[in-house]
Amino acid sequence: MSTTMWLRSAAAALPGPPVDNAALGARIGLPAEWIDRFVGTRARHFAKGRTDLAGLCERAARDALGRAGLAARELDFVVLATATPDALMPTTAAVVADRLGAGDVPVYQLQSGCSGTVQALALARALLADGAGRGLVLGGDVAAKHLDLDQDFRSMRPAQLVNYVVFGDGAGAAVVSADRAPGAARCAAVGHRPVLPGVAPGQRLEWYGAAERDSSLPPATEDYAAVEQRVPELAEQAAKEQLAALDWTGEQLDHLLPPQLGGRMTTAITARLRAALGAERAAELSCVADTGNTGNALLLQQLALLLPLLREGERTLAVCVESSRWITGTLALGPEGRSV
Amino acid sequence: MSTTMWLRSAAAALPGPPVDNAALGARIGLPAEWIDRFVGTRARHFAKGRTDLAGLCERAARDALGRAGLAARELDFVVLATATPDALMPTTAAVVADRLGAGDVPVYQLQSGCSGTVQALALARALLADGAGRGLVLGGDVAAKHLDLDQDFRSMRPAQLVNYVVFGDGAGAAVVSADRAPGAARCAAVGHRPVLPGVAPGQRLEWYGAAERDSSLPPATEDYAAVEQRVPELAEQAAKEQLAALDWTGEQLDHLLPPQLGGRMTTAITARLRAALGAERAAELSCVADTGNTGNALLLQQLALLLPLLREGERTLAVCVESSRWITGTLALGPEGRSV
Repeated sequence: MSTTMWLRSAAAALPGPPVDNAALGARIGLPAEWIDRFVGTRARHFAKGRTDLAGLCERAARDALGRAGLAARELDFVVLATATPDALMPTTAAVVADRLGAGDVPVYQLQSGCSGTVQALALARALLADGAGRGLVLGGDVAAKHLDLDQDFRSMRPAQLVNYVVFGDGAGAAVVSADRAPGAARCAAVGHRPVLPGVAPGQRLEWYGAAERDSSLPPATEDYAAVEQRVPELAEQAAKEQLAALDWTGEQLDHLLPPQLGGRMTTAITARLRAALGAERAAELSCVADTGNTGNALLLQQLALLLPLLREGERTLAVCVESSRWITGTLALGPEGRSV
Repeated sequence: MSTTMWLRSAAAALPGPPVDNAALGARIGLPAEWIDRFVGTRARHFAKGRTDLAGLCERAARDALGRAGLAARELDFVVLATATPDALMPTTAAVVADRLGAGDVPVYQLQSGCSGTVQALALARALLADGAGRGLVLGGDVAAKHLDLDQDFRSMRPAQLVNYVVFGDGAGAAVVSADRAPGAARCAAVGHRPVLPGVAPGQRLEWYGAAERDSSLPPATEDYAAVEQRVPELAEQAAKEQLAALDWTGEQLDHLLPPQLGGRMTTAITARLRAALGAERAAELSCVADTGNTGNALLLQQLALLLPLLREGERTLAVCVESSRWITGTLALGPEGRSV
């Protein structure tokens, strides 16, 4: 591919105050120590209400536009990735673009899980290749509307209960462009692909039409054993393949943005990636322990942490793994090598 | 833009037998004559079950691949547009791509209303511009899961009741490529854009997480007065602007694919477009009277009807209007002029 995408800014938005394990544990009947030990996430934020994704995305977008020194009307497109839109129609992307005053530029909303921001960045690069100059990439999730904190948790099975401690709400935004701007990070590679053909999904998040409102099906189901087993393997495989495609070595990596499933798993995956890639020098950038798994927001939150630290010539590798239908995603930032 | 996209095949899939106005009217307490007269849709198909979108898309995809003479493993990407996915995660697009055996190519699912197939085709063109060779574009909706046919309709307000006669279920598929293939139609233009900034949505389709399962909010709301007024105006405006951008005149149009809201509105919009564009010679291609409004499937159904009729050198203009957040979409097929 000949199109180079530049990452000009990134920002994140989280709703309300953090909910720590003591407060959450008291609510759902789990000891805070159990959450600390087995999940490793210290806090998360929960949005109030069903339609807060648009508000979170708008906040993150205004921050990212400000950091890039751009007005919304200077954008050529808006892309939003989420698993949990405010409504099926109109799209949250269209609502946010309208609120920002982005004008009549094309707006896309990707339905996606944890690989969504990589998908949105890949779509953005394709739009730049098709002639666009600059665009806004948004990602976020409001899982809180799937979580009924008023129910009786005593009869809930662990496979359901874990959703209440793993997920959090948030949004992120990034401004990308085809032209280099001062301080922008060069996107050396961005890609996503399905893996494990034919293997059952590790997560399923239902939605219900009118005809299913009385369904007794659980709204969200996870196979955490499969997730715990597969995600580290898939992260390693995706990272190795991305480095090989770029002709980069692990030793060259300055920053590593690992998958953000939970504090404990992320720590383990980072250790595995450092060892497998020989990337002992790479600094980990993670946020999950303080925000929970915010789905499509996570990579943008990591990028918002990274960009102020990033120095000319440094190399960064980000890895995502989506465990619904299994998908891996990678993003590489760096000054050299061909774009892939 | 320099990328030309070729439309190699299109196909549609509808579930079960058609449900005519006599059968539907008896169920919901409306005279068949009223539906005939005020909506102008004779029949529609309803999918059984919540997760039939994947099955419908798979059927349409296999048909379209067969018509294009391609195997799924020869695709470079899969894009699916829908307002009504089978689940929030995994995406229906990922499920269909896995069933088809499309391998590890990028898969995108757009959340979208009636402009969705144009959005998917625009995304496909961008992916071709970014280096892909050929891809599969899918669109479809299963509105049936929003329609509870077992309820008491006597207390339902007309604004809700009309949903039961307007919508139908279906899916469509198209194969596109960057290289010309024998019999392929040249995509001269494809684009979509938000219009009417700040104007309230004409449609809203909710979804509910666990915390809202007991909500008394209606799952779908429409402002049909706004839809009836705005859509014809917006269709005319979008058609005129697309022709001007292409340097085409209405007299040159051989085929016209108008928005498909309902049989009666579509007939009126076609008459308006013919008069406003001077496109008296253009043959209308519509399917809504026999399938209902199938949302993201409609344009693909129209294209499946069109392609076998299309002759070398002919010009086609398709227009879509999405009335949730207001969006217009256009697709032009033809042999000359720059791609826009």
